Amino acid sequence: MRAVVYKGPFEVAVENVEDPKIQDPNDVVVRITSTCICGSDLHMYEGRTAAEPGIVFGHENLGIVEEVGPGVASLRQGDRVVMPFNVACGFCKNCQRGYTGFCLTVNQGFAGGAYGYVAMGPYTGGQAEYLRVPFADFNCLKLPEGDEHEADFALLADIFPTGYHGTELADVRPGETVAVFGAGPVGLMAAYSAMIRGAERVFVVDRVKERLDKAEEIGCIPVNFDEVDPVEYIKEQTPGNRLSTLSVDNEANRGVDKGIDAVGYQAHVRGGEREEPAIVLNTLIECVRPTGALGVPGLYVPADPGAPDDAAKKGQLLVSIGRMFEKGLRMGTGQCNVKRYNAYLRDLIIAGRARPSFVVSHEVPLDQAPEAYEKFDKRIEGYTKVILKP
Amino acid sequence: MRAVVYKGPFEVAVENVEDPKIQDPNDVVVRITSTCICGSDLHMYEGRTAAEPGIVFGHENLGIVEEVGPGVASLRQGDRVVMPFNVACGFCKNCQRGYTGFCLTVNQGFAGGAYGYVAMGPYTGGQAEYLRVPFADFNCLKLPEGDEHEADFALLADIFPTGYHGTELADVRPGETVAVFGAGPVGLMAAYSAMIRGAERVFVVDRVKERLDKAEEIGCIPVNFDEVDPVEYIKEQTPGNRLSTLSVDNEANRGVDKGIDAVGYQAHVRGGEREEPAIVLNTLIECVRPTGALGVPGLYVPADPGAPDDAAKKGQLLVSIGRMFEKGLRMGTGQCNVKRYNAYLRDLIIAGRARPSFVVSHEVPLDQAPEAYEKFDKRIEGYTKVILKP
Amino acid sequence: MRAVVYKGPFEVAVENVEDPKIQDPNDVVVRITSTCICGSDLHMYEGRTAAEPGIVFGHENLGIVEEVGPGVASLRQGDRVVMPFNVACGFCKNCQRGYTGFCLTVNQGFAGGAYGYVAMGPYTGGQAEYLRVPFADFNCLKLPEGDEHEADFALLADIFPTGYHGTELADVRPGETVAVFGAGPVGLMAAYSAMIRGAERVFVVDRVKERLDKAEEIGCIPVNFDEVDPVEYIKEQTPGNRLSTLSVDNEANRGVDKGIDAVGYQAHVRGGEREEPAIVLNTLIECVRPTGALGVPGLYVPADPGAPDDAAKKGQLLVSIGRMFEKGLRMGTGQCNVKRYNAYLRDLIIAGRARPSFVVSHEVPLDQAPEAYEKFDKRIEGYTKVILKP
Amino acid sequence: MRAVVYKGPFEVAVENVEDPKIQDPNDVVVRITSTCICGSDLHMYEGRTAAEPGIVFGHENLGIVEEVGPGVASLRQGDRVVMPFNVACGFCKNCQRGYTGFCLTVNQGFAGGAYGYVAMGPYTGGQAEYLRVPFADFNCLKLPEGDEHEADFALLADIFPTGYHGTELADVRPGETVAVFGAGPVGLMAAYSAMIRGAERVFVVDRVKERLDKAEEIGCIPVNFDEVDPVEYIKEQTPGNRLSTLSVDNEANRGVDKGIDAVGYQAHVRGGEREEPAIVLNTLIECVRPTGALGVPGLYVPADPGAPDDAAKKGQLLVSIGRMFEKGLRMGTGQCNVKRYNAYLRDLIIAGRARPSFVVSHEVPLDQAPEAYEKFDKRIEGYTKVILKP
Repeated sequence: MRAVVYKGPFEVAVENVEDPKIQDPNDVVVRITSTCICGSDLHMYEGRTAAEPGIVFGHENLGIVEEVGPGVASLRQGDRVVMPFNVACGFCKNCQRGYTGFCLTVNQGFAGGAYGYVAMGPYTGGQAEYLRVPFADFNCLKLPEGDEHEADFALLADIFPTGYHGTELADVRPGETVAVFGAGPVGLMAAYSAMIRGAERVFVVDRVKERLDKAEEIGCIPVNFDEVDPVEYIKEQTPGNRLSTLSVDNEANRGVDKGIDAVGYQAHVRGGEREEPAIVLNTLIECVRPTGALGVPGLYVPADPGAPDDAAKKGQLLVSIGRMFEKGLRMGTGQCNVKRYNAYLRDLIIAGRARPSFVVSHEVPLDQAPEAYEKFDKRIEGYTKVILKP
Repeated sequence: MRAVVYKGPFEVAVENVEDPKIQDPNDVVVRITSTCICGSDLHMYEGRTAAEPGIVFGHENLGIVEEVGPGVASLRQGDRVVMPFNVACGFCKNCQRGYTGFCLTVNQGFAGGAYGYVAMGPYTGGQAEYLRVPFADFNCLKLPEGDEHEADFALLADIFPTGYHGTELADVRPGETVAVFGAGPVGLMAAYSAMIRGAERVFVVDRVKERLDKAEEIGCIPVNFDEVDPVEYIKEQTPGNRLSTLSVDNEANRGVDKGIDAVGYQAHVRGGEREEPAIVLNTLIECVRPTGALGVPGLYVPADPGAPDDAAKKGQLLVSIGRMFEKGLRMGTGQCNVKRYNAYLRDLIIAGRARPSFVVSHEVPLDQAPEAYEKFDKRIEGYTKVILKP
Repeated sequence: MRAVVYKGPFEVAVENVEDPKIQDPNDVVVRITSTCICGSDLHMYEGRTAAEPGIVFGHENLGIVEEVGPGVASLRQGDRVVMPFNVACGFCKNCQRGYTGFCLTVNQGFAGGAYGYVAMGPYTGGQAEYLRVPFADFNCLKLPEGDEHEADFALLADIFPTGYHGTELADVRPGETVAVFGAGPVGLMAAYSAMIRGAERVFVVDRVKERLDKAEEIGCIPVNFDEVDPVEYIKEQTPGNRLSTLSVDNEANRGVDKGIDAVGYQAHVRGGEREEPAIVLNTLIECVRPTGALGVPGLYVPADPGAPDDAAKKGQLLVSIGRMFEKGLRMGTGQCNVKRYNAYLRDLIIAGRARPSFVVSHEVPLDQAPEAYEKFDKRIEGYTKVILKP
Repeated sequence: MRAVVYKGPFEVAVENVEDPKIQDPNDVVVRITSTCICGSDLHMYEGRTAAEPGIVFGHENLGIVEEVGPGVASLRQGDRVVMPFNVACGFCKNCQRGYTGFCLTVNQGFAGGAYGYVAMGPYTGGQAEYLRVPFADFNCLKLPEGDEHEADFALLADIFPTGYHGTELADVRPGETVAVFGAGPVGLMAAYSAMIRGAERVFVVDRVKERLDKAEEIGCIPVNFDEVDPVEYIKEQTPGNRLSTLSVDNEANRGVDKGIDAVGYQAHVRGGEREEPAIVLNTLIECVRPTGALGVPGLYVPADPGAPDDAAKKGQLLVSIGRMFEKGLRMGTGQCNVKRYNAYLRDLIIAGRARPSFVVSHEVPLDQAPEAYEKFDKRIEGYTKVILKP
């Protein structure tokens, strides 16, 4: 079959590789119809990970069940399914409590597995014509027959649930104010999810005009941090005359109820000329009011060879823990447990209550993957979220 | 001052009564600008309670602070405020845990107090020019200066939070399906709240076309139980091909995730010719899927002299507890703790994310209260929710 | 193999039946070393269900893995395991959210399956030498090698988690007062669980002295309802001078925080001479303070041919819903989702923090099952909880 | 009256100061019978804060109501009461949601107030004969008449709830393993609380033998970090054969479920010769298993002039955020909201289910405060927790 193969830094090729097949009674093989390129694929593409040439990329996969192992109970050939990017067993201590992003079974010695990703286990990626899915009863989410909502559903594999996960980690409730840092696909999905959950106002902070425009389109308040200081701006807009007695307006009663970091460790300072890995985290600690909470779906890594200093290379950053304690903040972190949310989000799509595909910029044939990777990596020609169609 | 005084069954008059004054250091006196007639006022109006002539009605009150007791810390003359219908102390065991509808201080020997309501404590109602508010720091919610959103804010005293309370009791979560029985003002507010919280679909069940039309206007699915069997209809619309693997479609995988009873004990059977107090509760038990939950903001009473049988007179109804257990359902009941929600809902109004006043049918001067009560009681001329303007 | 076979009302026999074998790649076969007789087995034994002769009983099973299907990932021959009484798939909508007692896969058309029980699916019981366990990775809980804590671990199949489930349904928190009605094995496990969770005081209500003695042994307060009125007694003991300001002592501030019904629909009135199906439920509604909660692990059924009246035959009982609403109570019901709790409870046993086997009265060879059933059914010779040893 | 007055670094004196009196209708004056010296008093005593000479210390206060303001509803002269160290209004946005440690009313411009503490508002301390208590209905917790449990009850003002708060922040549940770093009074109270809540095993890490002995006395597992590496030791003791399938034993399945930092920013490295402010936090991140949680009741400050480096002086520490994200950990921080827990803990004391006074080492007359401060500060003669008796 044809598949997107990593050749080395800044190079992928579409090549013939061996067809996947049923290896275990609980496997299915899926014929892929939509598979997205993820921002995290670019880490490998840029050569900033330990990924070796030869790996097939792709962890955001949707398609049609082609072959079914004898242990599979709920799937039949022809079923249309989308798979969480996490590979999970469904029965280990973590999976059974809903932490499917931290499965103890599928990737020996590590908590969590994924398709087509370095160090995430032996699972070939889905930027290809076919994909083997292990523990298929647990890992496949069924979709309505046909091809309706194909782009919306494809986002159920990762970024829509991941954005939603940010709102869960931050415990966003109806009537609360929220600040989302980062208006890339995950940040926009987090902001969109906060709106769906009934947030009062959602501030979206970024420095790219196109992204901020999209945030505004979905009803959020764009904040360009090259133009205004986000801490000052957000505090000014949240004068404690909301959700509280109106007369108490002081420093301690300003700030948003909840904050979401959809940027992660590759954060840049104002102007963008320099990375400062903890700047988003520490800015959020200032933006969120005392007793609030932070959700951190943005990636922080335990080892970053390209980091600006020795501590950061080991994943240690200067965090304003003193301020955080003084304000009594809570923080939730970690990659998304997609299976916790994907069926609910699917049903919002079916009911017409969610249309996450507004973030998709391009849909291209699988064979154009090399070009799509290049443009997406350079963020040129409006490439922000690409779906490959095998 | 002028006030709406209960004279006897089906009779109220606007009369001169003594002005309220500061009795305790923590009191304020509020000049009322908007005060709603509540469906529960009609229980007294119709003479179906122990209310004695002379009582001043009114527990949905909004106005301007006129006088401030020496112990009050956060309010000043001129502040615009809306008061929860519950009178609460803020420091008893129940209040401190957020159960302000069950205050142990304000109504000796009973859990919970209210303004202008029989057996709810010595608090004169607010369908009048002025209102004394005890424990004012705790019981007043500040509003923005001016008169914007007056009707929306007036609904913060009771029905908007009470409808929202139904969604809390039922634990409605984003992406879930919900059935609301009853499309009166509280039912509509429950359905509206479910939409705000990100429900997938909300079925609203009633038999009055005008009410069902309003439900449809806010994006819900109207179900006229005189025309279709709501259990059959709802099960047909929730075939288990949502929020689940699509192939498992059987009886046990149908039904809404959550149900809300906004009718209470004065429920009527199909056609409406006869009361059957538990019919809504038992129909909901059938409509909700196994593992689901019921929220019951609709009133059930421990003593109902007008009930159809002896057990019902004592507040005991034939409940399908066997089915409820088999399905593993949860149920939450009780009157709303308004203060838990009112600030969040206020802020949704300020931000333009909620406009609950779509349920208000009439705004009339206080002096027209007798006429308004009569028409509202008969549900004629479209009287569904009335605001009196002193 | 030898197995306990139902022959007809009040008759079981130990007979040779066919050996179970691997039918599906996800099966294992377990050699049973301990299998308990459950109170709910007696419903079938007494002929009060639709159970047909020939059924093999037994849903509380512990043993050693003997044979392993090719799709099973985490088990090996020789592993010591205990199985929840619920059979569950692990991947349906209910299982994935932890409601394994309401699995949609294993028992077509119904939510929930079990071993050796009428209408709970095609799963042969474990009062036998061997047991087939489907979806074995999900349904087997591993135990330490050897035979230590055998009786404690055997109770992990049902009654220890079921009692614990009662405390979850009632949301028992540290420092709260609790009333448990029924001091049979499940009631004692509920009371024991409440103590483990840090309850302040646990009142246990029953009329059998031996049971009440056991309650007292584990630190609870026994209440014999033939001797005192439990509502009066409990209210007297909870004068609102606890968990509250001490001066507020009135009716509304008395009662336990949480109540657990471990009796179910076969409840008897004082003196015991007559069944009154809702008496425990309604007495609990009186015992629990306003804003409290009820947990109902005790069985209520949707059809009871032997019930005292027509409504009860259909599972409808006269419930004090008016009082329940007035007090703002919550209620949780349904059979236990064993897998939610069994690993945590196992670890409390291993650590020496729980010894649930204090409720076990007899351990007898499998061949003595007929005699054990008879004595347990009559509650003679101290038969309260029996473990069969194949 | 006589009171403990701060004179300057390492010097307090018992002097005559003006008697407190009712200043506001909601005040009471309490005659103090027990008032503890807190570890946090030593920060001021040692001159490491901005505290000016003249301040009266004391935020852990118990006594008898002597005088009652005219706005106070629930208290009478002669009532025995204990006050949370936090001063709180009861009606601001934070108080009404239970965050009484972050009151917006009592300390203008800051979230949170306390008695006798620098920068925590204008509230004189209670190491004195009398204490003025504002918003008395909200801030006084009533105790049974007499003098029983005086030492236990005195600990309800701060350290018992603060330790318990650690278990809430970490969301400790029955059957879970817990690691508590720091076996000072707060750490011991956290470990004790974890035991009360039904933890499976509680590891207590410190380097002082006497403290570790106390931990062992209450059933915990002492870990001396001068003798063993706590990460290695704890991982060795939690081999994933608990709370999980037994066969999955790898790095990712080791570690405690929950961790509590009861040390804070003045943490020392092994051997104790050097401060390293983030060492406890980062060690806990290693000790806790993926998907776990950290509770941080130990103090971190936004400004620390005595810190080892510039970042730490501003409250920024090198936190292993990369590891934390990889493991998907949650973290809760901040000072205790005493009123959330104190009534429940009081009732555990009354019922004989908790005896926190095992941490009290000395009870001395108020006049011996200077000596007690000196010895406690030097940790000599076994001074670990001192109660002053005016």
